[in-house]
Amino acid sequence: MPKITVVKNILDANDRIAEENRKIFDKEKIYVLNLMSSPGAGKTSIVERTIAVLQGKYKIGVIEGDIQGSADAERIAKLGVPVVQINTGGACHIDGNMIREALPGLDLTQTDLLIAENVGNLVCPAEFKIGENVKVMVLSTPEGSDKPAKYPLMFQQSEAMIINKIDLLPYVDFDMAKAKKDALTLNRNLKIFEVSCKTSAGLKDWFNWLSERIESFRSK
Amino acid sequence: MPKITVVKNILDANDRIAEENRKIFDKEKIYVLNLMSSPGAGKTSIVERTIAVLQGKYKIGVIEGDIQGSADAERIAKLGVPVVQINTGGACHIDGNMIREALPGLDLTQTDLLIAENVGNLVCPAEFKIGENVKVMVLSTPEGSDKPAKYPLMFQQSEAMIINKIDLLPYVDFDMAKAKKDALTLNRNLKIFEVSCKTSAGLKDWFNWLSERIESFRSK
Repeated sequence: MPKITVVKNILDANDRIAEENRKIFDKEKIYVLNLMSSPGAGKTSIVERTIAVLQGKYKIGVIEGDIQGSADAERIAKLGVPVVQINTGGACHIDGNMIREALPGLDLTQTDLLIAENVGNLVCPAEFKIGENVKVMVLSTPEGSDKPAKYPLMFQQSEAMIINKIDLLPYVDFDMAKAKKDALTLNRNLKIFEVSCKTSAGLKDWFNWLSERIESFRSK
Repeated sequence: MPKITVVKNILDANDRIAEENRKIFDKEKIYVLNLMSSPGAGKTSIVERTIAVLQGKYKIGVIEGDIQGSADAERIAKLGVPVVQINTGGACHIDGNMIREALPGLDLTQTDLLIAENVGNLVCPAEFKIGENVKVMVLSTPEGSDKPAKYPLMFQQSEAMIINKIDLLPYVDFDMAKAKKDALTLNRNLKIFEVSCKTSAGLKDWFNWLSERIESFRSK
């Protein structure tokens, strides 16, 4: 009887592909940001604002992950940066293999920072590595301050949390102290930014933090 | 060599369990609502408001689906209705089997309306039947009007969409006409309610629609 090989865990298989992606990124000195959140928390706005400020300093490429369509990729393309749209065709996250398939669409020798905007989902994306240097999540104030306690993995896996839409604080029930406390209980090293893409409040700290991370990576 | 049975599709297996649940619900004349949305769109608030208005008319039971914790179940229990908390332990949706496991926690002979609040996720819950009579989704205005085009399955699978947080319309970029048009393009029979759980605007239409559905089911 022929030997049957069982791939024990789809996550193990994904980890191997993510590591291969990582080797490619290391060879080309590309810092990779995996940006995750619920639908509509403001990922694309953060990508737009980040590109506007950092594109003088770094060559930026973007991978947009969506179930279907290319609306976000069209927003990003207007900023003059190369962008590849992944359509997951129903899948609720991007994974290592999708990123590998997307790479031929970018000139990696001309990329310092690669931003991968994940599918809007506060659960599944946190489980799948893509070969990133850093996972960053966005939580928007209208979602409520109970989210860390209810969706813990995303908060545990992320190195930084951007709390977006602070301009809406007067109109929504969002307990900032509770959200931060609960997130830090899950992940005591989590770096937290309070921002509004509408008013620009707090964004400078995020840009500086990301720049420092990129510099530290490039100087290795 | 023994025959190997391959369950082709996890969704096929789930469908079978959902049908078994449905038989139980039909036998007990229980109308089952599967309520779905992104995290923080306001599902629990809608459940609370619905219970407050309909509990004089129907015996209501609730199943709360969360990855972990029981915060929402505690909110519902305060209203004096039986509630079972499902902790999915990481899974991004509730499915037929989880509902089956939850049923012994409810007195089905004393239930007219069973509300199952799904895990907050605009993608995966739409794929899994639980034995419901109706799937209803919530879209909140801060999520943005681009959601139907980006997360089509949820809009296609739902019979009704509750657009919640219309009190925030002056403060967010939400194109109501576009959201409705795009949703109706995906699902031309979709019933749409514009509501605010904060101000109570529009909720009466939702209560009436749900009551009519329950009455129609009970008169069969």
